[in-house]
Amino acid sequence: MPLTITRFAPENLSSAEVTKSLTSDSQSASYKLEYFDLMGVGAHIRDMLSFGSAQWENLPLTVHLNWPAEVKAPLGVFPVLHIKTADGQEIRLSELVVIEHYLAKQFGLLGENEWEELLIKTFNSSSVYLRERLTLRVTWCYKEVQEKALETFFEKELPRWIETHTKHLKDNGSNGHYVGNKLSLADLQTANVIDHLKFLHKGDEMVDKIKQGSPEIWKVKEAVDSEPRLQTWRQSETYKKHASLSQVVYAHASI
Amino acid sequence: MPLTITRFAPENLSSAEVTKSLTSDSQSASYKLEYFDLMGVGAHIRDMLSFGSAQWENLPLTVHLNWPAEVKAPLGVFPVLHIKTADGQEIRLSELVVIEHYLAKQFGLLGENEWEELLIKTFNSSSVYLRERLTLRVTWCYKEVQEKALETFFEKELPRWIETHTKHLKDNGSNGHYVGNKLSLADLQTANVIDHLKFLHKGDEMVDKIKQGSPEIWKVKEAVDSEPRLQTWRQSETYKKHASLSQVVYAHASI
Repeated sequence: MPLTITRFAPENLSSAEVTKSLTSDSQSASYKLEYFDLMGVGAHIRDMLSFGSAQWENLPLTVHLNWPAEVKAPLGVFPVLHIKTADGQEIRLSELVVIEHYLAKQFGLLGENEWEELLIKTFNSSSVYLRERLTLRVTWCYKEVQEKALETFFEKELPRWIETHTKHLKDNGSNGHYVGNKLSLADLQTANVIDHLKFLHKGDEMVDKIKQGSPEIWKVKEAVDSEPRLQTWRQSETYKKHASLSQVVYAHASI
Repeated sequence: MPLTITRFAPENLSSAEVTKSLTSDSQSASYKLEYFDLMGVGAHIRDMLSFGSAQWENLPLTVHLNWPAEVKAPLGVFPVLHIKTADGQEIRLSELVVIEHYLAKQFGLLGENEWEELLIKTFNSSSVYLRERLTLRVTWCYKEVQEKALETFFEKELPRWIETHTKHLKDNGSNGHYVGNKLSLADLQTANVIDHLKFLHKGDEMVDKIKQGSPEIWKVKEAVDSEPRLQTWRQSETYKKHASLSQVVYAHASI
């Protein structure tokens, strides 16, 4: 499909000037999240923007089961986060890990010090990869191998994730948070990964395995789901549309 | 297999104390990288440790084609970076993105300001995912789908990566670096991903496609390969052993 490769920042600005635009009065920045009308890997980003009471909106891509007809993005992939800085510059961020670390930093979701930040990013990455393994080896994979890849996921990958995450959550006092005593990027990621599982073939079994196997992980999910600042967004028609389209797209996904 | 879930930091230390141990006199820290005797996702980490003239050593895992018999790690996965801080504390980092961002920060491989750091992490992530897609959909996938997944990689994923990276390298002046005018994590990642491709089935064709398709990307690889601070490590017997074992492991890999 046709691809237009866009710039990350205006051509006439030096990296020092972009840094200044991004960091001065960053509370007045506004955001657009360019992504499919799905939860997918956009759900926790939208949660963060809502949690941070940011000025933000969705910039939807045409939803086919396939990719949009024309792609305009810095790396040809989505989500892309468009930032309008306080002084009016337009900046784009691409790559999930960059977007999520950036917003988590803006909205106080990386703990209280450098070690907490490292731990939060670690648990976040581990939950991202749980979903990635499932996405690349099962969901968006060839029909003829989906069932056996799913079996491996059930027998090995999911139990290991449950076991290791439960241990570290216990070490943190089983308080519904991975690190310290407050909401973090890791909590949001895990809760949204569990929400994502629900949409998948045999997703109810996966979620049940987590719920039965780990009250500690489930407590994280409940803490996220009951966070008051996420409620308005999650009760919106747009959120509900994302959820119902996710249901349609993922239920019979394959390549 | 038996799994012992280890802690990231000593139990008796608060996160503020771990932060202090990690950040005070961080130049005197020493490192052990626990990973297979392969290049894999350890190669650019070892390059960073060498580039930073750090005190470091490899902590090898038994190399089978499969996983080691017993796993002792915080999340049951490798690599794990063991850090001995200047004041003698033993800290473990897990998850690739956390280890690579951490070391890149230590050794000045994240550019000159926040915007450069964001861009470097973006290109780094994009090259990581090029390899991940190949690893999960082709290399460590089922024999019956490997060939067609490889075809998709050749026709879609690799060309898109080449096209987008080439454009941004041109925007940076085609100077052999992704950002600014010096070596970064992104440069090291891309060069090592290309080295990794060579070990794979049809790897020579992949590397040739990059070399012919993008003098700009190839210049990054040459700049990394000719970096004097990497030479001692890359000429060592251990490095050569990692390369030859990678050849054996990846040539006929599947699950």
